Amino acid sequence: MSMFITFEGPEGSGKSTVMQAIAKRLDQPLITTREPGGIRISEAIRELLLSDDYHMDARTEALLFAASRRQHLVEKVVPALNAGQIVLCDRFIDSSLAYQGYARGIGAAEIMSINQFAIESYMPDLTLYLKVDPEIGLTRIMSNQRETNRLDNESLAFHQRVCEGYDQLANTYDRIVTIDAAQPIDKVIEDAYQVIIKKLD
Amino acid sequence: MSMFITFEGPEGSGKSTVMQAIAKRLDQPLITTREPGGIRISEAIRELLLSDDYHMDARTEALLFAASRRQHLVEKVVPALNAGQIVLCDRFIDSSLAYQGYARGIGAAEIMSINQFAIESYMPDLTLYLKVDPEIGLTRIMSNQRETNRLDNESLAFHQRVCEGYDQLANTYDRIVTIDAAQPIDKVIEDAYQVIIKKLD
Repeated sequence: MSMFITFEGPEGSGKSTVMQAIAKRLDQPLITTREPGGIRISEAIRELLLSDDYHMDARTEALLFAASRRQHLVEKVVPALNAGQIVLCDRFIDSSLAYQGYARGIGAAEIMSINQFAIESYMPDLTLYLKVDPEIGLTRIMSNQRETNRLDNESLAFHQRVCEGYDQLANTYDRIVTIDAAQPIDKVIEDAYQVIIKKLD
Repeated sequence: MSMFITFEGPEGSGKSTVMQAIAKRLDQPLITTREPGGIRISEAIRELLLSDDYHMDARTEALLFAASRRQHLVEKVVPALNAGQIVLCDRFIDSSLAYQGYARGIGAAEIMSINQFAIESYMPDLTLYLKVDPEIGLTRIMSNQRETNRLDNESLAFHQRVCEGYDQLANTYDRIVTIDAAQPIDKVIEDAYQVIIKKLD
């Protein structure tokens, strides 16, 4: 049966690792993806978003994320859902709400309105919020020597506002389940897996 | 005194020619511009929009136009208005309402909502709609041997819907004044000039 499941959380919360581990354990037709997900125009938009070469207003940024999300949704997510697959997606609408809505200060209601234009009725059925202190998350990124980008390089205060935003979203939406991502990674994966199995039943 | 004046109409309606002629006649501090107006990220977005290389959903297109508009507005239009200048702008929000809202069928209300996110309170004070049959407009483009782009190459039926959209907008908003752009160009310029002079008084 088709189901749209998203993974959310701050940098270094382990979203990608957890999602891939769950994909291996689930014995069902599924795809894993993340925006821009190999969609050509979304890849081109992402290059603009992560580049340091441009002046970019916060609302310009929010509209570009929504545009990229739209094309990824219609080209990749919706066809998979229509084919009866589970879609596991690393980041979706809640990232825009937390980053642009809360941390950039535009407001969640305004960000929701442009994203509803972008996604229409395709809200996630289930969202796993991997909650971790931003200090821990950022330390993980540094120690993994993953290449950092324009958003990683924001101040710690910015990343703290992102986390406060996610906390508020988790309090607002029933579809969002919070997972303690400060735990050892195997425990995080197990907790996330159990939530998904319960939802699928 | 600052005033935000936009020029709208289908392809080949003479917007750029009329705007430049009026800029020469107005004896006031002013700038002329058009989206993307030399704003680097807006230029990059425009390249995506006019390219034939990408699959692009109508809502993706609408969000990209809104993003480009936002950055052009905050980097170029607003500073000029704040400096007390008149801003003459070739195309603005009504292009999105006519092209994506009406001609692509997304609906004007939805296009208005993402554009209000983009432009906030900066609506034009005056909009000149250069009205001309799409057959005449497209014939002018062909005979001028101007380079055509992805939107020019849409069907005649598409351009007819654009014109119907502009007609409806002109009926809806008091700020929009319709000019008969099938007249000789000197007469079109004179009519447009008189409308602007009256508004400035």
